[in-house]
Amino acid sequence: MHGKGYIGIVGGLGPYAGLDLVKKIFQRTKADRDQEHLPVMLYSFPGEVPIRTSYLLGRTSQNPGEALGRIMVQLAQSGARIIAMPCNTAHHPRILNVALNALHNYDNSVQFINIIESSIRQIERACRPGSHIGILATVATLETGLYQEELIKYGFTPVILNDKECATVQEAINSPFFGIKKTTPHISNESRAILLNAALRLSEKDVDAILLGCTEIPLAITEKELFGKSIIDATDALAIEVVNAFEPSKLLY
Amino acid sequence: MHGKGYIGIVGGLGPYAGLDLVKKIFQRTKADRDQEHLPVMLYSFPGEVPIRTSYLLGRTSQNPGEALGRIMVQLAQSGARIIAMPCNTAHHPRILNVALNALHNYDNSVQFINIIESSIRQIERACRPGSHIGILATVATLETGLYQEELIKYGFTPVILNDKECATVQEAINSPFFGIKKTTPHISNESRAILLNAALRLSEKDVDAILLGCTEIPLAITEKELFGKSIIDATDALAIEVVNAFEPSKLLY
Repeated sequence: MHGKGYIGIVGGLGPYAGLDLVKKIFQRTKADRDQEHLPVMLYSFPGEVPIRTSYLLGRTSQNPGEALGRIMVQLAQSGARIIAMPCNTAHHPRILNVALNALHNYDNSVQFINIIESSIRQIERACRPGSHIGILATVATLETGLYQEELIKYGFTPVILNDKECATVQEAINSPFFGIKKTTPHISNESRAILLNAALRLSEKDVDAILLGCTEIPLAITEKELFGKSIIDATDALAIEVVNAFEPSKLLY
Repeated sequence: MHGKGYIGIVGGLGPYAGLDLVKKIFQRTKADRDQEHLPVMLYSFPGEVPIRTSYLLGRTSQNPGEALGRIMVQLAQSGARIIAMPCNTAHHPRILNVALNALHNYDNSVQFINIIESSIRQIERACRPGSHIGILATVATLETGLYQEELIKYGFTPVILNDKECATVQEAINSPFFGIKKTTPHISNESRAILLNAALRLSEKDVDAILLGCTEIPLAITEKELFGKSIIDATDALAIEVVNAFEPSKLLY
């Protein structure tokens, strides 16, 4: 085993978002040949993890944190010393705390890299203090104030769309006909149009940057800037913090 | 754990080729939502595995099969019941037998899905009996006759380029300036031009199909057809056999 153990990724939330994080970890690593890349384990077990949004919105009582905790323990048992989970909604404390309790009961020394905190750090690097940050995310992430509270804590002003617009963003992710989770790796015109329109609406509210706060969204929106606003990709922000935690000298920034 | 255990992927050979196989497993799976995808573990530990080509061409005595065997055992210990390795060169018996001996000494019931055999099956589905099959691959894969022997065994006629042309294909993969292993996920114009030109040269030899027999090549050549010839992607062929072995009813073909 690698002297430092491995980077462990809880994937499958959804499957392509897990791959996207691993790809971004590779992209954020200084490496001229195969052997210089960091050791990464991806556990993509989507069938084991109930839908996060349904739990947070009270539509089911089965807490996905239990399955996520089991997967984290499996990663730690297999040698992961740093764990990350590319799903913003699953970072709600009602889910995440259950998972992290299981992990840290097994091994308290495994480091979890939080996607919400990683995004805030990226916003601090990319934006002036006090900036207004538009958020594109699932209804559950927005309704539970996951990003809003953190942004306010760090002196930023969160900006979100109205309920109707947020519901269309959720459709872009989840529609059984054209949603990202259904059509990946292809992205439907409908999903892309909804997300671009949502970004446009946020840009009209005079935000300084737009945060892609759901790991499915950067599968459809890969631009670094839209309508003159910087795009902050939570998955990329997480990749940066993962590489930095594992081997800071290898971080490509 | 999933009742059938997991699909285990030996990645890192190179890192993006590992991701490409996982992506193609997802693409070959009938799934309308996250939870319907198959459980996949990817171990991408490139720093542990010496360069396969160097060993086969006698430039080093360190057999990469030892490290690959250790990784396969780790996957089996973590619950993998089916293992695949997206690297054609590593399927040479001098490497693969060492790895599989280690795996099957640990657990004889774990099934290994071979990329060479998977490609032959795909060629049997896609081409008429006796077809002439052009091969794009590393110098080591070609010099050791890995694909040529299998193709002849199944009644096909292998067609390869001359030594100078094969050396340029190796450059497209390995050049420290523009090679796929250096520039992924971006692909340089140089690499793409070399590979397209090599495909053109093969098509001029009246082949019926062209096999991409190195897992880096489909990162640069994503076409299904070039110069009127079908393209057979070994990574996709492997994905098909992996899904078929794990849960045949979920295979999307």
